[in-house]
Amino acid sequence: MHFTAETSSNGVVERDFTVGEVTGVLWSPASAPEHTPLVLMGHGGGQDKKSPGVLARARPLVTTLGFSVAAIDLPGHGDRPPTAADYYHWSDLQQARAVGESIGPVVVRYSAELAERAVPEWQMALDALQELPEIGTAHPVGYSGAMLSTAIGVRLMAVDPRITAGVFRCFFSSESLLEAAGRVTAPIQLLLQWHDTDIDRQDGLALFDAFASKEKTLHANAGGHHQVPEFEADSTARFFARHLGQAGT
Amino acid sequence: MHFTAETSSNGVVERDFTVGEVTGVLWSPASAPEHTPLVLMGHGGGQDKKSPGVLARARPLVTTLGFSVAAIDLPGHGDRPPTAADYYHWSDLQQARAVGESIGPVVVRYSAELAERAVPEWQMALDALQELPEIGTAHPVGYSGAMLSTAIGVRLMAVDPRITAGVFRCFFSSESLLEAAGRVTAPIQLLLQWHDTDIDRQDGLALFDAFASKEKTLHANAGGHHQVPEFEADSTARFFARHLGQAGT
Repeated sequence: MHFTAETSSNGVVERDFTVGEVTGVLWSPASAPEHTPLVLMGHGGGQDKKSPGVLARARPLVTTLGFSVAAIDLPGHGDRPPTAADYYHWSDLQQARAVGESIGPVVVRYSAELAERAVPEWQMALDALQELPEIGTAHPVGYSGAMLSTAIGVRLMAVDPRITAGVFRCFFSSESLLEAAGRVTAPIQLLLQWHDTDIDRQDGLALFDAFASKEKTLHANAGGHHQVPEFEADSTARFFARHLGQAGT
Repeated sequence: MHFTAETSSNGVVERDFTVGEVTGVLWSPASAPEHTPLVLMGHGGGQDKKSPGVLARARPLVTTLGFSVAAIDLPGHGDRPPTAADYYHWSDLQQARAVGESIGPVVVRYSAELAERAVPEWQMALDALQELPEIGTAHPVGYSGAMLSTAIGVRLMAVDPRITAGVFRCFFSSESLLEAAGRVTAPIQLLLQWHDTDIDRQDGLALFDAFASKEKTLHANAGGHHQVPEFEADSTARFFARHLGQAGT
Protein backbone atom coordinates (compact mmCIF):
# COMPACT_ATOMS: atom_id res chain seq x y z
CA MET A 1 0.00 0.00 0.00
CA HIS A 2 1.35 3.37 -1.04
CA PHE A 3 0.02 6.66 0.23
CA THR A 4 0.05 9.19 -2.62
CA ALA A 5 -1.48 12.30 -1.04
CA GLU A 6 -2.51 13.56 2.38
CA THR A 7 -4.75 16.44 3.40
CA SER A 8 -6.47 17.29 6.63
CA SER A 9 -9.55 19.37 7.44
CA ASN A 10 -12.02 19.66 10.29
CA GLY A 11 -10.52 16.85 12.30
CA VAL A 12 -10.41 14.37 9.41
CA VAL A 13 -7.17 13.18 7.80
CA GLU A 14 -7.66 12.12 4.17
CA ARG A 15 -5.01 9.90 2.59
CA ASP A 16 -5.15 8.72 -1.01
CA PHE A 17 -3.59 5.31 -1.53
CA THR A 18 -2.93 2.68 -4.14
CA VAL A 19 -2.70 -1.02 -3.55
CA GLY A 20 -1.80 -2.87 -6.71
CA GLU A 21 -3.89 -1.28 -9.46
CA VAL A 22 -6.57 -0.23 -7.02
CA THR A 23 -6.94 3.45 -6.10
CA GLY A 24 -8.46 4.27 -2.76
CA VAL A 25 -8.81 6.76 0.05
CA LEU A 26 -8.60 6.40 3.81
CA TRP A 27 -10.24 8.85 6.19
CA SER A 28 -9.12 8.81 9.83
CA PRO A 29 -9.83 10.98 12.85
CA ALA A 30 -7.00 13.54 13.24
CA SER A 31 -6.65 12.51 16.87
CA ALA A 32 -6.78 8.81 16.18
CA PRO A 33 -6.16 6.34 18.96
CA GLU A 34 -4.41 3.22 17.77
CA HIS A 35 -6.68 0.50 16.43
CA THR A 36 -9.83 2.25 15.30
CA PRO A 37 -12.74 0.25 13.93
CA LEU A 38 -12.82 0.36 10.13
CA VAL A 39 -15.74 0.73 7.75
CA LEU A 40 -15.32 -0.13 4.07
CA MET A 41 -17.48 2.11 1.95
CA GLY A 42 -18.69 1.25 -1.52
CA HIS A 43 -19.74 3.83 -4.13
CA GLY A 44 -22.61 3.65 -6.61
CA GLY A 45 -22.47 3.06 -10.36
CA GLY A 46 -20.86 5.93 -12.28
CA GLN A 47 -19.59 7.40 -9.01
CA ASP A 48 -16.19 7.04 -7.36
CA LYS A 49 -14.43 6.84 -4.01
CA LYS A 50 -14.91 10.56 -3.29
CA SER A 51 -18.42 11.11 -4.64
CA PRO A 52 -20.62 13.33 -2.46
CA GLY A 53 -22.74 10.37 -1.36
CA VAL A 54 -19.66 8.53 -0.12
CA LEU A 55 -18.34 11.60 1.70
CA ALA A 56 -21.71 12.19 3.33
CA ARG A 57 -21.84 8.63 4.68
CA ALA A 58 -18.15 8.56 5.64
CA ARG A 59 -17.75 11.83 7.53
CA PRO A 60 -20.05 11.15 10.53
CA LEU A 61 -18.43 7.75 11.07
CA VAL A 62 -15.04 9.48 11.40
CA THR A 63 -16.05 12.64 13.28
CA THR A 64 -18.74 11.21 15.56
CA LEU A 65 -17.58 7.65 16.14
CA GLY A 66 -13.83 8.06 15.65
CA PHE A 67 -13.77 5.28 13.07
CA SER A 68 -11.52 4.97 10.03
CA VAL A 69 -13.31 4.73 6.71
CA ALA A 70 -11.84 3.41 3.47
CA ALA A 71 -13.26 3.68 -0.03
CA ILE A 72 -11.83 2.26 -3.24
CA ASP A 73 -12.69 2.97 -6.87
CA LEU A 74 -14.57 0.11 -8.48
CA PRO A 75 -12.96 -1.15 -11.72
CA GLY A 76 -13.57 1.39 -14.50
CA HIS A 77 -14.57 4.08 -12.02
CA GLY A 78 -12.77 7.14 -10.62
CA ASP A 79 -9.04 6.94 -11.31
CA ARG A 80 -9.23 3.46 -12.84
CA PRO A 81 -9.33 3.06 -16.64
CA PRO A 82 -12.25 1.02 -17.97
CA THR A 83 -11.59 -2.37 -19.54
CA ALA A 84 -13.25 -3.86 -22.61
CA ALA A 85 -15.66 -5.64 -20.25
CA ASP A 86 -16.73 -2.32 -18.72
CA TYR A 87 -17.38 -0.75 -22.14
CA TYR A 88 -19.37 -3.81 -23.14
CA HIS A 89 -21.71 -3.51 -20.14
CA TRP A 90 -22.03 0.27 -20.44
CA SER A 91 -23.02 -0.07 -24.07
CA ASP A 92 -25.72 -2.60 -23.09
CA LEU A 93 -26.87 -0.15 -20.44
CA GLN A 94 -27.11 2.73 -22.91
CA GLN A 95 -29.02 0.58 -25.33
CA ALA A 96 -31.55 -0.51 -22.69
CA ARG A 97 -32.09 3.12 -21.72
CA ALA A 98 -32.36 4.23 -25.37
CA VAL A 99 -35.20 1.82 -26.09
CA GLY A 100 -36.86 2.47 -22.74
CA GLU A 101 -36.30 -1.03 -21.35
CA SER A 102 -35.64 -1.77 -17.69
CA ILE A 103 -31.93 -1.58 -16.95
CA GLY A 104 -32.38 -4.32 -14.34
CA PRO A 105 -31.17 -7.32 -16.35
CA VAL A 106 -28.10 -5.43 -17.65
CA VAL A 107 -27.20 -4.13 -14.19
CA VAL A 108 -27.61 -7.60 -12.71
CA ARG A 109 -25.16 -9.06 -15.26
CA TYR A 110 -22.78 -6.10 -14.90
CA SER A 111 -22.74 -6.11 -11.09
CA ALA A 112 -22.17 -9.87 -10.88
CA GLU A 113 -19.22 -9.64 -13.27
CA LEU A 114 -17.91 -6.52 -11.50
CA ALA A 115 -18.08 -8.31 -8.15
CA GLU A 116 -15.80 -11.05 -9.47
CA ARG A 117 -13.15 -8.37 -9.91
CA ALA A 118 -14.00 -6.08 -6.99
CA VAL A 119 -14.36 -8.63 -4.18
CA PRO A 120 -10.72 -9.80 -4.36
CA GLU A 121 -9.67 -6.14 -4.68
CA TRP A 122 -11.51 -5.26 -1.47
CA GLN A 123 -9.88 -8.21 0.27
CA MET A 124 -6.44 -7.11 -0.91
CA ALA A 125 -7.13 -3.55 0.25
CA LEU A 126 -8.37 -4.83 3.61
CA ASP A 127 -5.23 -6.94 4.05
CA ALA A 128 -3.13 -3.82 3.51
CA LEU A 129 -5.31 -1.59 5.69
CA GLN A 130 -5.11 -4.02 8.60
CA GLU A 131 -1.33 -3.83 8.44
CA LEU A 132 -1.49 -0.13 9.34
CA PRO A 133 -0.79 0.41 13.06
CA GLU A 134 -3.75 2.79 13.43
CA ILE A 135 -6.14 0.10 12.20
CA GLY A 136 -4.74 -3.33 12.94
CA THR A 137 -6.82 -6.46 13.35
CA ALA A 138 -8.10 -5.91 16.89
CA HIS A 139 -11.36 -4.26 15.79
CA PRO A 140 -14.08 -5.75 13.65
CA VAL A 141 -14.75 -4.31 10.21
CA GLY A 142 -17.99 -3.01 8.70
CA TYR A 143 -19.18 -2.48 5.13
CA SER A 144 -21.50 0.28 3.94
CA GLY A 145 -22.84 0.03 0.41
CA ALA A 146 -24.81 2.25 -1.93
CA MET A 147 -26.71 0.55 -4.73
CA LEU A 148 -24.15 -1.00 -7.07
CA SER A 149 -21.85 -1.51 -4.12
CA THR A 150 -24.56 -3.48 -2.34
CA ALA A 151 -24.16 -6.07 -5.07
CA ILE A 152 -20.42 -6.05 -4.36
CA GLY A 153 -20.62 -5.89 -0.58
CA VAL A 154 -23.09 -8.71 -0.08
CA ARG A 155 -20.79 -11.00 -2.06
CA LEU A 156 -17.78 -9.68 -0.12
CA MET A 157 -19.44 -10.39 3.23
CA ALA A 158 -20.41 -13.85 2.01
CA VAL A 159 -16.75 -14.81 1.66
CA ASP A 160 -14.87 -12.62 4.19
CA PRO A 161 -15.59 -13.25 7.88
CA ARG A 162 -13.55 -10.20 8.88
CA ILE A 163 -16.55 -8.05 7.97
CA THR A 164 -18.95 -8.39 10.86
CA ALA A 165 -21.61 -5.74 10.13
CA GLY A 166 -23.08 -4.41 6.90
CA VAL A 167 -25.44 -1.67 5.78
CA PHE A 168 -26.92 -2.04 2.31
CA ARG A 169 -29.47 -0.56 -0.04
CA CYS A 170 -31.94 -2.64 -1.96
CA PHE A 171 -30.84 -3.80 -5.39
CA PHE A 172 -32.22 -5.62 -8.41
CA SER A 173 -32.84 -9.20 -7.39
CA SER A 174 -30.96 -12.11 -8.90
CA GLU A 175 -30.42 -15.72 -7.97
CA SER A 176 -26.71 -15.09 -7.52
CA LEU A 177 -27.19 -12.12 -5.17
CA LEU A 178 -29.81 -13.93 -3.08
CA GLU A 179 -27.52 -16.95 -2.87
CA ALA A 180 -24.68 -14.73 -1.59
CA ALA A 181 -27.02 -13.07 0.95
CA GLY A 182 -27.92 -16.56 2.16
CA ARG A 183 -24.29 -17.03 3.16
CA VAL A 184 -24.13 -13.78 5.17
CA THR A 185 -24.61 -14.45 8.87
CA ALA A 186 -23.30 -11.18 10.38
CA PRO A 187 -25.76 -8.44 11.42
CA ILE A 188 -27.04 -6.33 8.54
CA GLN A 189 -29.25 -3.31 8.06
CA LEU A 190 -31.01 -2.88 4.71
CA LEU A 191 -32.51 0.35 3.38
CA LEU A 192 -35.57 0.17 1.12
CA GLN A 193 -37.42 3.08 -0.48
CA TRP A 194 -41.10 2.17 -0.43
CA HIS A 195 -42.00 4.18 -3.56
CA ASP A 196 -38.86 3.35 -5.53
CA THR A 197 -39.69 3.16 -9.24
CA ASP A 198 -36.22 1.83 -10.15
CA ILE A 199 -35.90 -1.11 -7.76
CA ASP A 200 -38.99 -3.25 -7.34
CA ARG A 201 -40.24 -3.41 -3.74
CA GLN A 202 -40.45 -7.19 -3.95
CA ASP A 203 -36.76 -7.34 -4.94
CA GLY A 204 -35.87 -5.51 -1.76
CA LEU A 205 -38.06 -7.70 0.44
CA ALA A 206 -36.61 -10.82 -1.19
CA LEU A 207 -33.07 -9.62 -0.52
CA PHE A 208 -33.91 -8.93 3.13
CA ASP A 209 -35.52 -12.34 3.45
CA ALA A 210 -32.46 -14.04 1.94
CA PHE A 211 -29.88 -12.88 4.52
CA ALA A 212 -29.03 -15.68 6.93
CA SER A 213 -28.16 -13.12 9.62
CA LYS A 214 -29.71 -13.74 13.02
CA GLU A 215 -29.85 -9.96 13.49
CA LYS A 216 -31.17 -8.22 10.42
CA THR A 217 -33.22 -5.03 10.17
CA LEU A 218 -35.05 -3.60 7.21
CA HIS A 219 -35.63 0.15 7.24
CA ALA A 220 -38.31 0.89 4.68
CA ASN A 221 -39.04 4.58 4.19
CA ALA A 222 -41.72 6.42 2.27
CA GLY A 223 -40.39 8.13 -0.83
CA GLY A 224 -38.70 7.47 -4.14
CA HIS A 225 -35.28 6.10 -5.02
CA HIS A 226 -33.36 9.28 -4.20
CA GLN A 227 -35.39 10.29 -1.14
CA VAL A 228 -33.63 8.32 1.61
CA PRO A 229 -34.35 10.38 4.75
CA GLU A 230 -31.43 12.17 6.37
CA PHE A 231 -32.09 10.48 9.71
CA GLU A 232 -30.94 7.18 8.21
CA ALA A 233 -27.34 8.45 8.34
CA ASP A 234 -27.70 8.69 12.11
CA SER A 235 -29.31 5.28 12.21
CA THR A 236 -26.43 3.77 10.19
CA ALA A 237 -23.89 5.33 12.57
CA ARG A 238 -25.70 3.85 15.57
CA PHE A 239 -25.80 0.43 13.90
CA PHE A 240 -22.03 0.49 13.36
CA ALA A 241 -21.37 1.86 16.86
CA ARG A 242 -23.37 -1.05 18.28
CA HIS A 243 -21.52 -3.70 16.30
CA LEU A 244 -18.01 -2.36 15.82
CA GLY A 245 -17.56 -0.81 19.24
CA GLN A 246 -16.03 2.53 20.01
CA ALA A 247 -12.65 3.75 18.80
CA GLY A 248 -9.86 3.07 21.25
CA THR A 249 -11.87 0.58 23.29
CA MET B 1 -58.80 14.69 36.52
CA HIS B 2 -58.09 13.45 40.03
CA PHE B 3 -54.70 12.29 41.23
CA THR B 4 -55.13 9.32 43.55
CA ALA B 5 -51.56 8.35 44.40
CA GLU B 6 -48.03 9.68 43.95
CA THR B 7 -44.67 7.97 44.25
CA SER B 8 -41.23 8.91 43.07
CA SER B 9 -38.13 6.87 42.29
CA ASN B 10 -34.94 7.30 40.27
CA GLY B 11 -35.90 10.70 38.94
CA VAL B 12 -39.40 9.68 37.81
CA VAL B 13 -42.58 10.89 39.48
CA GLU B 14 -45.48 8.46 39.07
CA ARG B 15 -48.99 9.76 39.62
CA ASP B 16 -52.10 7.58 39.34
CA PHE B 17 -55.14 9.44 38.11
CA THR B 18 -58.77 9.00 37.20
CA VAL B 19 -60.66 10.97 34.63
CA GLY B 20 -64.31 9.97 34.54
CA GLU B 21 -64.33 6.17 34.75
CA VAL B 22 -60.90 5.91 33.21
CA THR B 23 -57.92 4.93 35.37
CA GLY B 24 -54.50 6.08 34.27
CA VAL B 25 -50.98 6.91 35.27
CA LEU B 26 -48.72 9.85 34.46
CA TRP B 27 -44.93 9.61 34.62
CA SER B 28 -42.97 12.86 34.66
CA PRO B 29 -39.32 13.76 35.17
CA ALA B 30 -38.74 14.72 38.82
CA SER B 31 -37.03 17.91 37.68
CA ALA B 32 -39.67 18.76 35.08
CA PRO B 33 -39.49 22.03 33.22
CA GLU B 34 -42.89 23.44 32.43
CA HIS B 35 -44.45 22.19 29.22
CA THR B 36 -42.85 18.85 28.52
CA PRO B 37 -43.71 16.92 25.37
CA LEU B 38 -46.20 14.13 26.11
CA VAL B 39 -46.35 10.57 24.83
CA LEU B 40 -49.54 8.54 25.20
CA MET B 41 -48.73 4.91 25.72
CA GLY B 42 -51.08 2.06 24.94
CA HIS B 43 -50.88 -1.39 26.53
CA GLY B 44 -51.44 -4.78 24.91
CA GLY B 45 -54.41 -7.14 25.31
CA GLY B 46 -54.67 -8.65 28.79
CA GLN B 47 -52.12 -6.14 30.09
CA ASP B 48 -52.67 -2.83 31.82
CA LYS B 49 -51.29 0.68 32.25
CA LYS B 50 -48.38 -0.53 34.43
CA SER B 51 -47.45 -3.77 32.67
CA PRO B 52 -43.71 -4.39 32.33
CA GLY B 53 -43.80 -3.72 28.57
CA VAL B 54 -45.38 -0.32 29.14
CA LEU B 55 -42.89 0.58 31.87
CA ALA B 56 -39.98 -0.49 29.68
CA ARG B 57 -41.12 1.76 26.84
CA ALA B 58 -42.09 4.66 29.12
CA ARG B 59 -39.03 4.97 31.35
CA PRO B 60 -36.40 6.00 28.73
CA LEU B 61 -38.76 8.64 27.34
CA VAL B 62 -38.96 10.22 30.81
CA THR B 63 -35.39 9.74 31.99
CA THR B 64 -33.52 10.31 28.72
CA LEU B 65 -35.75 12.78 26.89
CA GLY B 66 -37.44 14.50 29.83
CA PHE B 67 -40.88 13.77 28.39
CA SER B 68 -44.07 13.07 30.28
CA VAL B 69 -45.72 9.73 29.51
CA ALA B 70 -49.33 8.83 30.20
CA ALA B 71 -50.96 5.40 30.08
CA ILE B 72 -54.59 4.51 30.64
CA ASP B 73 -56.27 1.17 31.24
CA LEU B 74 -58.27 -0.01 28.26
CA PRO B 75 -61.90 -0.86 29.07
CA GLY B 76 -62.01 -4.16 30.98
CA HIS B 77 -58.29 -4.04 31.74
CA GLY B 78 -56.28 -3.14 34.86
CA ASP B 79 -58.49 -1.34 37.38
CA ARG B 80 -61.51 -1.21 35.08
CA PRO B 81 -64.29 -3.80 35.43
CA PRO B 82 -65.15 -5.70 32.25
CA THR B 83 -68.52 -5.13 30.61
CA ALA B 84 -70.79 -7.71 29.01
CA ALA B 85 -69.21 -6.79 25.65
CA ASP B 86 -65.74 -7.61 26.99
CA TYR B 87 -66.85 -11.03 28.30
CA TYR B 88 -68.49 -11.73 24.98
CA HIS B 89 -65.27 -11.10 23.03
CA TRP B 90 -63.10 -12.95 25.54
CA SER B 91 -65.37 -15.99 25.31
CA ASP B 92 -65.01 -15.91 21.50
CA LEU B 93 -61.26 -15.66 21.95
CA GLN B 94 -61.14 -18.66 24.29
CA GLN B 95 -63.24 -20.69 21.92
CA ALA B 96 -61.00 -19.90 18.93
CA ARG B 97 -57.96 -20.92 20.97
CA ALA B 98 -59.66 -24.08 22.24
CA VAL B 99 -60.38 -25.36 18.73
CA GLY B 100 -56.98 -24.19 17.42
CA GLU B 101 -58.38 -21.55 15.06
CA SER B 102 -56.61 -18.29 14.31
CA ILE B 103 -57.59 -15.63 16.83
CA GLY B 104 -57.24 -13.00 14.07
CA PRO B 105 -60.93 -12.57 13.16
CA VAL B 106 -62.00 -12.38 16.84
CA VAL B 107 -59.25 -9.90 17.73
CA VAL B 108 -60.13 -7.76 14.71
CA ARG B 109 -63.78 -7.55 15.83
CA TYR B 110 -62.81 -7.03 19.48
CA SER B 111 -60.24 -4.31 18.78
CA ALA B 112 -62.57 -2.37 16.48
CA GLU B 113 -65.31 -2.41 19.10
CA LEU B 114 -62.84 -1.57 21.86
CA ALA B 115 -61.54 1.38 19.85
CA GLU B 116 -65.04 2.84 19.72
CA ARG B 117 -64.89 3.09 23.51
CA ALA B 118 -61.18 3.77 23.99
CA VAL B 119 -60.62 6.52 21.41
CA PRO B 120 -63.01 9.00 23.10
CA GLU B 121 -61.49 8.00 26.46
CA TRP B 122 -57.99 8.85 25.24
CA GLN B 123 -59.27 12.17 23.93
CA MET B 124 -60.90 12.95 27.28
CA ALA B 125 -57.70 12.01 29.11
CA LEU B 126 -55.65 14.15 26.73
CA ASP B 127 -57.95 17.13 27.29
CA ALA B 128 -57.34 16.78 31.04
CA LEU B 129 -53.60 16.19 30.71
CA GLN B 130 -53.16 19.29 28.57
CA GLU B 131 -54.78 21.35 31.32
CA LEU B 132 -51.89 20.47 33.65
CA PRO B 133 -49.34 23.31 33.81
CA GLU B 134 -46.40 20.89 33.39
CA ILE B 135 -47.81 19.65 30.10
CA GLY B 136 -49.96 22.32 28.49
CA THR B 137 -50.64 22.58 24.79
CA ALA B 138 -47.34 24.11 23.63
CA HIS B 139 -45.71 20.79 22.80
CA PRO B 140 -46.89 18.22 20.28
CA VAL B 141 -48.10 14.84 21.48
CA GLY B 142 -46.97 11.35 20.48
CA TYR B 143 -48.56 7.92 20.72
CA SER B 144 -46.75 4.64 21.31
CA GLY B 145 -48.71 1.43 20.88
CA ALA B 146 -48.16 -2.24 21.56
CA MET B 147 -50.25 -4.70 19.58
CA LEU B 148 -53.86 -4.24 20.67
CA SER B 149 -53.14 -0.59 21.32
CA THR B 150 -51.94 -0.18 17.74
CA ALA B 151 -55.50 -0.89 16.70
CA ILE B 152 -56.63 1.83 19.14
CA GLY B 153 -53.86 4.33 18.41
CA VAL B 154 -54.15 4.30 14.62
CA ARG B 155 -57.84 5.12 14.96
CA LEU B 156 -57.03 7.78 17.57
CA MET B 157 -54.46 9.46 15.32
CA ALA B 158 -56.93 9.32 12.43
CA VAL B 159 -59.31 11.62 14.31
CA ASP B 160 -57.09 13.67 16.66
CA PRO B 161 -54.65 16.11 15.03
CA ARG B 162 -53.02 16.86 18.40
CA ILE B 163 -51.08 13.62 18.04
CA THR B 164 -48.29 14.38 15.61
CA ALA B 165 -46.06 11.28 15.81
CA GLY B 166 -46.85 7.60 16.36
CA VAL B 167 -44.97 4.36 16.89
CA PHE B 168 -46.91 1.18 16.29
CA ARG B 169 -46.54 -2.58 16.03
CA CYS B 170 -48.02 -4.61 13.24
CA PHE B 171 -51.50 -5.94 13.81
CA PHE B 172 -54.04 -8.21 12.15
CA SER B 173 -55.21 -6.48 9.01
CA SER B 174 -58.80 -5.31 8.53
CA GLU B 175 -60.54 -2.95 6.17
CA SER B 176 -61.45 -0.68 9.07
CA LEU B 177 -57.87 -0.44 10.39
CA LEU B 178 -56.39 0.19 6.93
CA GLU B 179 -59.04 2.85 6.32
CA ALA B 180 -58.06 4.58 9.58
CA ALA B 181 -54.35 4.37 8.68
CA GLY B 182 -55.21 6.02 5.36
CA ARG B 183 -56.37 9.07 7.33
CA VAL B 184 -53.14 9.34 9.36
CA THR B 185 -50.81 11.94 7.84
CA ALA B 186 -48.41 12.53 10.76
CA PRO B 187 -45.02 10.75 10.83
CA ILE B 188 -45.17 7.15 11.99
CA GLN B 189 -42.76 4.33 12.72
CA LEU B 190 -44.02 0.77 12.46
CA LEU B 191 -42.37 -2.32 13.96
CA LEU B 192 -42.70 -5.65 12.18
CA GLN B 193 -41.28 -9.01 13.28
CA TRP B 194 -40.19 -10.81 10.12
CA HIS B 195 -40.75 -14.33 11.51
CA ASP B 196 -43.93 -13.54 13.44
CA THR B 197 -46.20 -16.59 13.43
CA ASP B 198 -49.10 -14.67 15.02
CA ILE B 199 -49.36 -11.68 12.71
CA ASP B 200 -49.02 -12.39 9.01
CA ARG B 201 -46.13 -10.52 7.38
CA GLN B 202 -48.43 -9.32 4.60
CA ASP B 203 -50.78 -7.79 7.19
CA GLY B 204 -47.89 -5.70 8.50
CA LEU B 205 -46.76 -4.60 5.05
CA ALA B 206 -50.35 -3.70 4.13
CA LEU B 207 -50.70 -1.58 7.27
CA PHE B 208 -47.44 0.24 6.50
CA ASP B 209 -48.57 0.81 2.93
CA ALA B 210 -51.91 2.21 4.09
CA PHE B 211 -50.58 5.11 6.19
CA ALA B 212 -50.97 8.42 4.33
CA SER B 213 -47.99 9.86 6.23
CA LYS B 214 -45.38 11.57 4.09
CA GLU B 215 -42.75 10.38 6.57
CA LYS B 216 -43.24 6.76 7.50
CA THR B 217 -40.64 4.14 8.39
CA LEU B 218 -41.01 0.41 8.72
CA HIS B 219 -38.53 -1.35 10.98
CA ALA B 220 -38.66 -5.04 10.14
CA ASN B 221 -36.50 -7.24 12.35
CA ALA B 222 -35.57 -10.88 12.19
CA GLY B 223 -37.23 -12.93 14.89
CA GLY B 224 -40.60 -14.03 16.19
CA HIS B 225 -43.47 -12.11 17.73
CA HIS B 226 -41.87 -11.60 21.13
CA GLN B 227 -38.32 -11.02 19.89
CA VAL B 228 -38.36 -7.29 19.17
CA PRO B 229 -34.68 -6.27 19.55
CA GLU B 230 -33.78 -4.07 22.50
CA PHE B 231 -32.22 -1.44 20.24
CA GLU B 232 -35.69 -0.57 18.95
CA ALA B 233 -36.40 1.19 22.28
CA ASP B 234 -33.53 3.55 21.49
CA SER B 235 -34.80 3.96 17.96
CA THR B 236 -38.29 4.82 19.24
CA ALA B 237 -36.84 7.41 21.62
CA ARG B 238 -34.91 9.03 18.77
CA PHE B 239 -38.03 9.10 16.61
CA PHE B 240 -39.99 10.92 19.31
CA ALA B 241 -37.07 13.28 20.08
CA ARG B 242 -36.97 14.21 16.39
CA HIS B 243 -40.69 14.91 16.16
CA LEU B 244 -41.72 16.14 19.58
CA GLY B 245 -38.68 18.25 20.35
CA GLN B 246 -36.82 18.43 23.60
CA ALA B 247 -38.37 19.11 26.98
CA GLY B 248 -38.30 22.76 27.94
CA THR B 249 -37.55 24.02 24.43
